[in-house]
Amino acid sequence: MKWISFRISGRESFGIVKGDRIIDISAFFAESECPRTLVELISRPEKLAHIEKQQDAMHGAIPCKDVQFLPAIRPSNNVMAVGKNYRKHVIEMGSVADIPEAIMIFTKSSNTLVGHKGTIPLHEDVTNELDYEGELAVVIGKEVTNISEAEALDAIFGFTILNDVTARDLQVKHKQFYLAKSLDGSCPVGPYVVTKDEIGDPSSLRIQTCVNGEKRQDGTLNQLIFPIATIISELSKGHTLMPGDVIATGTPDGVGKAMKPPRFLKEGDIVTVTIEGIGTLENQVM
Amino acid sequence: MKWISFRISGRESFGIVKGDRIIDISAFFAESECPRTLVELISRPEKLAHIEKQQDAMHGAIPCKDVQFLPAIRPSNNVMAVGKNYRKHVIEMGSVADIPEAIMIFTKSSNTLVGHKGTIPLHEDVTNELDYEGELAVVIGKEVTNISEAEALDAIFGFTILNDVTARDLQVKHKQFYLAKSLDGSCPVGPYVVTKDEIGDPSSLRIQTCVNGEKRQDGTLNQLIFPIATIISELSKGHTLMPGDVIATGTPDGVGKAMKPPRFLKEGDIVTVTIEGIGTLENQVM
Repeated sequence: MKWISFRISGRESFGIVKGDRIIDISAFFAESECPRTLVELISRPEKLAHIEKQQDAMHGAIPCKDVQFLPAIRPSNNVMAVGKNYRKHVIEMGSVADIPEAIMIFTKSSNTLVGHKGTIPLHEDVTNELDYEGELAVVIGKEVTNISEAEALDAIFGFTILNDVTARDLQVKHKQFYLAKSLDGSCPVGPYVVTKDEIGDPSSLRIQTCVNGEKRQDGTLNQLIFPIATIISELSKGHTLMPGDVIATGTPDGVGKAMKPPRFLKEGDIVTVTIEGIGTLENQVM
Repeated sequence: MKWISFRISGRESFGIVKGDRIIDISAFFAESECPRTLVELISRPEKLAHIEKQQDAMHGAIPCKDVQFLPAIRPSNNVMAVGKNYRKHVIEMGSVADIPEAIMIFTKSSNTLVGHKGTIPLHEDVTNELDYEGELAVVIGKEVTNISEAEALDAIFGFTILNDVTARDLQVKHKQFYLAKSLDGSCPVGPYVVTKDEIGDPSSLRIQTCVNGEKRQDGTLNQLIFPIATIISELSKGHTLMPGDVIATGTPDGVGKAMKPPRFLKEGDIVTVTIEGIGTLENQVM
């Protein structure tokens, strides 16, 4: 299933995309039983099972073209993200010596979330070096603690696309990454959360980032230094993952900071991140 | 006012402490109008004003001794925390060269929150070096972005006590602090959130941490490298702070890691953090 969170006629909702139409979540439940967010739904396996049983026979009533995309998911924790997880990206930002021996995790505030087609603020009074990072993000499907790599993929609900927009000057200045990664509107996520049964083996996915149509990043998920099962297992050590939690898996080489000379985002730039099977996340810098 | 979040007879609520009794939030509002959490209340200034008007004439019905303390506040974002913010603590953990030129911010997951008298899990399968960090935490009172230091104190709702429990081995291993700071139950917060009018100038506060009654940390808030107004102003740059957000202001010298030899937390240890005007936050390691 392909989940969308959206606004239409001033109302916020979420539902399943079928072809060019959306089945609103309200089509599946009486009002008092209806989950209000995708995260709430993911936390309720019996409600998910109910939808899986019903949805084949149902048709969407809302044309996709009529809705405004919201962030595909709003986790109850900050977005978690893996730093330095593609070898070539680590080297372009420094040297082989920077390849991490242990996983590096930082977070992005909930005010960073924007939807597909939403704008990325330039924040020119705060940073001169705003940069993109196209990433595959994992959406966690159930509460798990201390799980092995063998159990890790079973904890996944689905996948989405995420642009881990980063202020490079703040990243150097503040050392811990949180502030550089948490400017308002610096985490486009979407357009959809696609359930894992539709993705198959995520390590075969290809991810590409373009700025104004020019290809900047082109990687595959089998290049991850810490693969997805390792990320989830490592994060679950003494640290409970919750249904709906979002983990961005890292970015390939080709960021603007590493170009010679560096090319940072500027007003009007259109950034797209494409992952086969999920779609294209497009946002304009304003 | 001194706010408490608590559980009694299986019900979770919050309210104001007056002497040895609590006025439950439900005493101030009709059921349909009643905020469900302290964060929700802080977001509604008109409801806060209503309470301020009523509370002088009211008396508490619930004896404090009958309740279980919950985390004094559950922010809608991860807890934010300032690293390396007391000169002597920076030096005990490294050297003068490590004194930061810019503020360092990391976060702690919402699963870290525990209340006064709650237990801190030892996580001995994940870390051998669990350590305490007594801190004053600021609770934000309103939505603010890009505010100056002169405006910063006006954005504060109140203050609480926080123990930024840290796995020192993970802090070194993972470089970015999130994982080392986010083990489940590693953020006791409470017992109370005290509104700023009762605290006066926070820079005159004294903070002391004891383990099993032995004094380990003893600092004053005028020793902060980045004072509270600077912290709030810096964090608000391009990064909107929300009502109920919690910012831990850093820890003085005297952590277990810096003792010779190091003395980490062990099963049964009782850690107390005391700040005059707020109280004592006590938790046992289990």
